[in-house]
Amino acid sequence: MSLMSNLSTSMISSSSSAFLAPISFNSSRTQSVSVPVKSIKIIKCVATPQEQQTAYKTKVSRNANIAKLQAGYLFPEIARRRAAHLLKYPNAQVISLGIGDTTEPIPEVITSAMAKRSHALSTLEGYSGYGAEQGEKALRAALASAFYGNLGIEEDDIFVSDGAKCDISRLQVVFGSDVTMAVQDPSYPAYVDSSVIMGQTGQFQKDVEKYANIEYMRCTPENGFFPDLSSVARTDIIFFCSPNNPTGAAATREQLTQLVKFAKDNGSIIVYDSAYAMYMSDDNPRSIFEIPGAKEVAIETASFSKYAGFTGVRLGWTVVPKQLLFSDGFPVARDFNRIVCTCFNGASNISQAGGLACLSPEGLEAMQEVIGFYKENTKIIVETFNSLGFKVYGGQNAPYVWVHFPGRSSWDVFSEILEKTHIVTTPGSGFGPGGEGFIRVSAFGHRENVLEACRRFKQLYN
Amino acid sequence: MSLMSNLSTSMISSSSSAFLAPISFNSSRTQSVSVPVKSIKIIKCVATPQEQQTAYKTKVSRNANIAKLQAGYLFPEIARRRAAHLLKYPNAQVISLGIGDTTEPIPEVITSAMAKRSHALSTLEGYSGYGAEQGEKALRAALASAFYGNLGIEEDDIFVSDGAKCDISRLQVVFGSDVTMAVQDPSYPAYVDSSVIMGQTGQFQKDVEKYANIEYMRCTPENGFFPDLSSVARTDIIFFCSPNNPTGAAATREQLTQLVKFAKDNGSIIVYDSAYAMYMSDDNPRSIFEIPGAKEVAIETASFSKYAGFTGVRLGWTVVPKQLLFSDGFPVARDFNRIVCTCFNGASNISQAGGLACLSPEGLEAMQEVIGFYKENTKIIVETFNSLGFKVYGGQNAPYVWVHFPGRSSWDVFSEILEKTHIVTTPGSGFGPGGEGFIRVSAFGHRENVLEACRRFKQLYN
Repeated sequence: MSLMSNLSTSMISSSSSAFLAPISFNSSRTQSVSVPVKSIKIIKCVATPQEQQTAYKTKVSRNANIAKLQAGYLFPEIARRRAAHLLKYPNAQVISLGIGDTTEPIPEVITSAMAKRSHALSTLEGYSGYGAEQGEKALRAALASAFYGNLGIEEDDIFVSDGAKCDISRLQVVFGSDVTMAVQDPSYPAYVDSSVIMGQTGQFQKDVEKYANIEYMRCTPENGFFPDLSSVARTDIIFFCSPNNPTGAAATREQLTQLVKFAKDNGSIIVYDSAYAMYMSDDNPRSIFEIPGAKEVAIETASFSKYAGFTGVRLGWTVVPKQLLFSDGFPVARDFNRIVCTCFNGASNISQAGGLACLSPEGLEAMQEVIGFYKENTKIIVETFNSLGFKVYGGQNAPYVWVHFPGRSSWDVFSEILEKTHIVTTPGSGFGPGGEGFIRVSAFGHRENVLEACRRFKQLYN
Repeated sequence: MSLMSNLSTSMISSSSSAFLAPISFNSSRTQSVSVPVKSIKIIKCVATPQEQQTAYKTKVSRNANIAKLQAGYLFPEIARRRAAHLLKYPNAQVISLGIGDTTEPIPEVITSAMAKRSHALSTLEGYSGYGAEQGEKALRAALASAFYGNLGIEEDDIFVSDGAKCDISRLQVVFGSDVTMAVQDPSYPAYVDSSVIMGQTGQFQKDVEKYANIEYMRCTPENGFFPDLSSVARTDIIFFCSPNNPTGAAATREQLTQLVKFAKDNGSIIVYDSAYAMYMSDDNPRSIFEIPGAKEVAIETASFSKYAGFTGVRLGWTVVPKQLLFSDGFPVARDFNRIVCTCFNGASNISQAGGLACLSPEGLEAMQEVIGFYKENTKIIVETFNSLGFKVYGGQNAPYVWVHFPGRSSWDVFSEILEKTHIVTTPGSGFGPGGEGFIRVSAFGHRENVLEACRRFKQLYN
């Protein structure tokens, strides 16, 4: 049995940009190029119709809420289409600017700390078993200091997690099925999908491409990608992502002040996703807690994924201030703590050692360098689409470029680009009906691939 | 800012046996002794009553299902009592045989693989971002081969996770609020608590110490800790843990055959927790899938935690066979896959590298050695209580010893032992009303601590 020899094959994934992963053995960041992937096996976990007809069935009803979900979760769906493309063009030099997956190596100051912690686990003095479900004290303290220094957020307001997406679902479990929710339209699909799963919504309405009982807050070029709150209905929960995925728009201090006032007037809870805050170039708030009063109405979720290349290492955090109360005065943090303790067992201790290293002076500098690299990519992509005469949004404060194809279907544009240039993007309509007519181009990629992709975009659209 | 210097303080945890962690700098397994912990800070994430009276409250109602939960989750509750004990006796040599937390270092063949993967993440060729949400292909294949070799479980039936507890909650999200469930009484509290959280149950009934709408399957010495299925009501879901936590009882092939028949007759789904399977000494099944027909009615969840000391590293897996169907013929695996993709992003790639190393020939041997060490502890504990005239159960097939104190309250015995011997155990009633009158003694501990604990038990009960 030679299990270790299989390691290299383990990187084929249904939702990563792994097709680009083993692309080069040259350690220079700018030298990498994509190579063809010969065969892709699509994971099958579904019985065929014939099998189902004769097979034994339990008497357990399928969860009606999950049955409401449309198609696959966006990014696995894109992975499927990419895989199909590779079957059709097995020699294609596919470049992925689709799913926002980091591609650059993790700085050594961070991986060394994780390796050191790994080795220490083989010693009596360095071994640790179950950690605090909320995260290691030193990491919580470092997060409070690094990201919320003057904002009155304390160590015990911070819950370390295995990523923002996971915490969004745990927050939905806290809220339960009897709340109403609002989202930016377009927005990261995990907000809506987790809401559907928890039973907060009605059925999907095909005519408007929306789930019933969700308030979609339209964010368009016309309103500067900030919703007109005067026309937004009151909901219990408001998901708000800034800098935004997918539009790349960052809300200003004035806009966030409006949002906090809106939540306070309505007694709503904002779930603020700040996963891209360190990409901000402008002088907008990096945290919702920069807005006075936000601690009484907001939760903030964040992640090391896009700062340190931790998409595979898995580490994030969520801030639930002790000042945030349900209508009966019960602290939301206490229920979140209960869910974290019952449904989760803390992030990996090795990942947490990496997180702590990220927040050392050397780690912070190294993360800024990685972020700077992706921001240069962003600039190249923005300039390319600008030069081709497209209306381009985002890119300034986020690693995403939001390109307008007025009057066209996003999936059609996605398919056109994939078919003609072998570049994977993300169709805007995958983020909600408000994303129709847009394509999201991710700036996560090796420099050579981004430059090559831009050459192909110029060939296609010149 | 010297963040790294805080690392050692990070091991104080609300639910670990961390009080015993930094106990010795001697690398010999048998040389360690516990040392006093000077001060313990209990995490506070709750507003005080005064603050709540005048504070701003949102208009979001607290989730009524979460409000049904009694007290804290068992293990944090024990951690709180232990912390209070340490405040009272700051110089006490506390020994934890409470929460089932591993204490022995992870074999080097495993930590080396994790360190290697960590370092590789700093290289272009070794970097990987988002992995498959279901886990790396090589690990899924190795799990299928190592644990389900001849049982017809395939690589794509296996979903790698960050631990069995986390997967239990994700399974509950798949099932939703409209199912009914049964549990062994006593049983690991995460089954019941996650069921309450999802809204599958009624209120807690103080008179019988049970939640309404859960079928408690009594497991006692009288029935050999296997429920009398002829008196168990039909439910949609049946949680079943074998070898059992907390009783240590392992079901025989005949009993599991009965259970599978019972599920099949009723159209139920068994969620089989096999987290302690490798502790089996007797010739009982290690997997529910050893029983013919089980693939049509069972899910199995498992973990590296108690095999390789991965309680802090976080890695487990769940098997959802493609043959398992809801009443409408829809495969359960497909909905589980959707939940894994939407609410989870895969286990840490570093932990997965560790899991793969666990399944190499050297890793399997090293795990057997760790397990063998804990089984020796178990024997010492069993012999101690036997010599004191107690009726003792478990221990043969699981790292837990289930000690009977007939007619006494579990929490009283827990308190008596803690107060008089500074030993933390787990009160049986924390696992359900059927555990009343019992104490669970965990065999996870350094040898010196187990021996010292047994000396103290003899002093107290001789």
